[in-house]
Amino acid sequence: MRTSFTVEEIAKFLDAEIRGSSVKSLKGINSLKDAKKGDLSFLANKNYSALLNETEASFVILSQADAGKYDGDCLVVKDPYLAYARISHWFAAARKTNKKVSGEPAIIPTSVQIGANTSIGLNSVIGEDSTIGSNVSIGENVTIGEKAQIFPNVSIYNDVVIGKNAVIHSNSVIGSDGFGMARRDDGSWEKIAQLGSVSIGDHVEIGACCTIDRGALSDTKIHSGVKMDNHIQIAHNAIIGENTVMAAYCGVAGSSVIGKNCIFAGDVCVVGHVKVCDNVMVTARTLVTKSIKEPGSYSSGTTPLMNTQNWRRNTARFSQLDSMARSIVELKKSSKLIKH
Amino acid sequence: MRTSFTVEEIAKFLDAEIRGSSVKSLKGINSLKDAKKGDLSFLANKNYSALLNETEASFVILSQADAGKYDGDCLVVKDPYLAYARISHWFAAARKTNKKVSGEPAIIPTSVQIGANTSIGLNSVIGEDSTIGSNVSIGENVTIGEKAQIFPNVSIYNDVVIGKNAVIHSNSVIGSDGFGMARRDDGSWEKIAQLGSVSIGDHVEIGACCTIDRGALSDTKIHSGVKMDNHIQIAHNAIIGENTVMAAYCGVAGSSVIGKNCIFAGDVCVVGHVKVCDNVMVTARTLVTKSIKEPGSYSSGTTPLMNTQNWRRNTARFSQLDSMARSIVELKKSSKLIKH
Amino acid sequence: MRTSFTVEEIAKFLDAEIRGSSVKSLKGINSLKDAKKGDLSFLANKNYSALLNETEASFVILSQADAGKYDGDCLVVKDPYLAYARISHWFAAARKTNKKVSGEPAIIPTSVQIGANTSIGLNSVIGEDSTIGSNVSIGENVTIGEKAQIFPNVSIYNDVVIGKNAVIHSNSVIGSDGFGMARRDDGSWEKIAQLGSVSIGDHVEIGACCTIDRGALSDTKIHSGVKMDNHIQIAHNAIIGENTVMAAYCGVAGSSVIGKNCIFAGDVCVVGHVKVCDNVMVTARTLVTKSIKEPGSYSSGTTPLMNTQNWRRNTARFSQLDSMARSIVELKKSSKLIKH
Repeated sequence: MRTSFTVEEIAKFLDAEIRGSSVKSLKGINSLKDAKKGDLSFLANKNYSALLNETEASFVILSQADAGKYDGDCLVVKDPYLAYARISHWFAAARKTNKKVSGEPAIIPTSVQIGANTSIGLNSVIGEDSTIGSNVSIGENVTIGEKAQIFPNVSIYNDVVIGKNAVIHSNSVIGSDGFGMARRDDGSWEKIAQLGSVSIGDHVEIGACCTIDRGALSDTKIHSGVKMDNHIQIAHNAIIGENTVMAAYCGVAGSSVIGKNCIFAGDVCVVGHVKVCDNVMVTARTLVTKSIKEPGSYSSGTTPLMNTQNWRRNTARFSQLDSMARSIVELKKSSKLIKH
Repeated sequence: MRTSFTVEEIAKFLDAEIRGSSVKSLKGINSLKDAKKGDLSFLANKNYSALLNETEASFVILSQADAGKYDGDCLVVKDPYLAYARISHWFAAARKTNKKVSGEPAIIPTSVQIGANTSIGLNSVIGEDSTIGSNVSIGENVTIGEKAQIFPNVSIYNDVVIGKNAVIHSNSVIGSDGFGMARRDDGSWEKIAQLGSVSIGDHVEIGACCTIDRGALSDTKIHSGVKMDNHIQIAHNAIIGENTVMAAYCGVAGSSVIGKNCIFAGDVCVVGHVKVCDNVMVTARTLVTKSIKEPGSYSSGTTPLMNTQNWRRNTARFSQLDSMARSIVELKKSSKLIKH
Repeated sequence: MRTSFTVEEIAKFLDAEIRGSSVKSLKGINSLKDAKKGDLSFLANKNYSALLNETEASFVILSQADAGKYDGDCLVVKDPYLAYARISHWFAAARKTNKKVSGEPAIIPTSVQIGANTSIGLNSVIGEDSTIGSNVSIGENVTIGEKAQIFPNVSIYNDVVIGKNAVIHSNSVIGSDGFGMARRDDGSWEKIAQLGSVSIGDHVEIGACCTIDRGALSDTKIHSGVKMDNHIQIAHNAIIGENTVMAAYCGVAGSSVIGKNCIFAGDVCVVGHVKVCDNVMVTARTLVTKSIKEPGSYSSGTTPLMNTQNWRRNTARFSQLDSMARSIVELKKSSKLIKH
């Protein structure tokens, strides 16, 4: 199995035009921001265009338009996001090959208690005094710190790192693939290999039936002291700050960053690619649709509780809100007119 | 164990009046639309009354009122829905008996990788080059296509059919019972046996902690190319069209049909018995309360994000929306009056 | 391992001032309402102050202010809730010790069918004619009634009691820790040991991927005849009344009490510490923010479904609702003025 690829073979696979030195060999793929020498990168979202000037990537996948503005080596394609999706699987296979080389049995100290029917993959390490329940699946290259408690039927995918004193309740999933894909011309979807992993700090508690997805390129991160209730969803590349707590059904979409010491009531969801600063409280069922830059308490959520008949009468008016607001402005004008 | 029942014994169990030829023997139960000769059917929802004229069912469970309008053979009961619930268990047992007769060990090619502590039931078939993780439970009569990846702790119930190149992430459940029951006179609930299954096409990806319930009579269907994020719920007899994608927490209630190439943002829920056409986008946290007949982007969702104090002040006014709208109409009238 | 503690050692650990007889030994910890002689209790929420006059607790953890009004024996601390959190782990260990003494193999009648890779802990009892699927984890001291059906990958924690004819679908979790913690001075969180369990009546059906948390002090209770769809969350010490049904994604926060014969549509959430009376219907996606005292149908939920452009225009006005309402009042006044 291969662990690096030539620019030519990548260009051929992607039907890309090579601009620059084709003798380079590429060993990894990463974002413009995190790419190092030897890495391939891509620009698929114009919000990140400025990073073209700073990236250390050896080659960048670009559209015709963006390639015109770029001095470095690049591969020109019709749809850079789809090209990234297609080539991501080559690098996923390369990573796997790299890790397999040094496959050693898991290291499990005698102070660890392990339940029945639990499996732990190659190269994994369990910390002293940890308790792993029954029917737990721990993948390869997983590290779990000391005094962890992993309850039955938890699934931990390859490469996940979990700190000490972690508690993970039953049937939660750590490290499943982030939800990333690019659309093909025929309307079907090309999966993007999720090359990052999940990194969890110390003293983190995760409830039952939670899902924490692995990152697309870099890791999803849960910092120390975070406490999560049940049915939480943390999408790829999200970052949750120290000591933040989230009640049941809270969800954080891809690449969003939540600060320290935040308190989210039940069913708070945060859209992708936003930032919530430290010390923010959010009330139940709020949808956080934009970044929050000042500490304080925030809300959106549902309309007030009332009997269904009343509610129907009022909610029907919601679709007239804009015209109501305009009418009020007009009435004010004409009322002023009369007073004159 | 029995695989067919006489009209007399069913009538006796249901305390039903027989109208028509009692010599018939009934081998299955199905909806008016799908029933064939030899099947029992029922009418419990007047929206389906017109189907009485077309059904091929050999016997139909009807209320006194509906029986008066029906020429075919029928069983007259007080509550047809409860009668259907009660008799559904007879046909569930019959189906099970039919399948047990030919109980053969699962067929698992040598190209399949299977993790530790995984069980695969009788009559199941796993496709070439598939990977099944550890602690997976696969029931009886399950078919999984080639190159499938089933991650740890997935549960697949009996009779489920999954196409090729499927990916199912950890702790998801495929084929659990749909949520169907009829109320008894004493307020308790009679479970309706869920006789359908789940049928999943090719190249479908299902995230972690998802649930896809089996159908009540016919199958729940996920068509090829569908991609689902985590914590998705697909209720019994829902149908999801080709290449439709759903972000985390999306839910589709019973018997709703979603078209092809739809894109649902996070936490979109669709109520039961509606149709969403092809090429529909729905924004985050929308509740789809009615059928959508034109392609486009649709929304409902929560109120805008603001600080909690502001939000409380505004949301409190929601219960006055209707009276506000009426006031505006009156003010407009009196303003016109003055202008005259 | 210890099963009771002296007042002195507790006071020393909590840095508390002892008021009253320090010779007492404390065997348990409970709420003011449920504490018996020999129990420690605490007052951390002024809504429960009146219970100080009635409690049978031998010692109560109090703030300086509350201690001034209390005649009984007490431990005075700066933060009673944090003190309760810290000491709760001593009593959790004591309970565990008590149970371990009589550790006997589980009792499993020959009429019970058990799937592959299922484990059942010490002191557990499975009822006659029950079916336990594969990869199920049943903890210690669990009791399951006769004719239960537990599907694959279900996790049942220690001490849970489940009645007869229960159905629990795959990957659900019964008895995971309630989400309770107290904040330390440095902003990190002290976990509160969850000393209660879960008690489930007869003929209860629980869907797939549900979570029912154990109680903090007393038990979480699901009464007979309750039917739950998938992805349900029942928090610690909630109580669900007989024959109540809940569609997918319904959640009940801590200590809330739901009456009998209620019907909750999908995604209804109930905030903590409220009561919903019997015979209440709640429409889809409603947030129940306060107690409901009269039977009937209730709603809050999302705004109506419309095209996204329209919706954006209207929802933007939501933040002006309060000022719109004020304008209408003013316009009415000035309109009256003119009519005069």
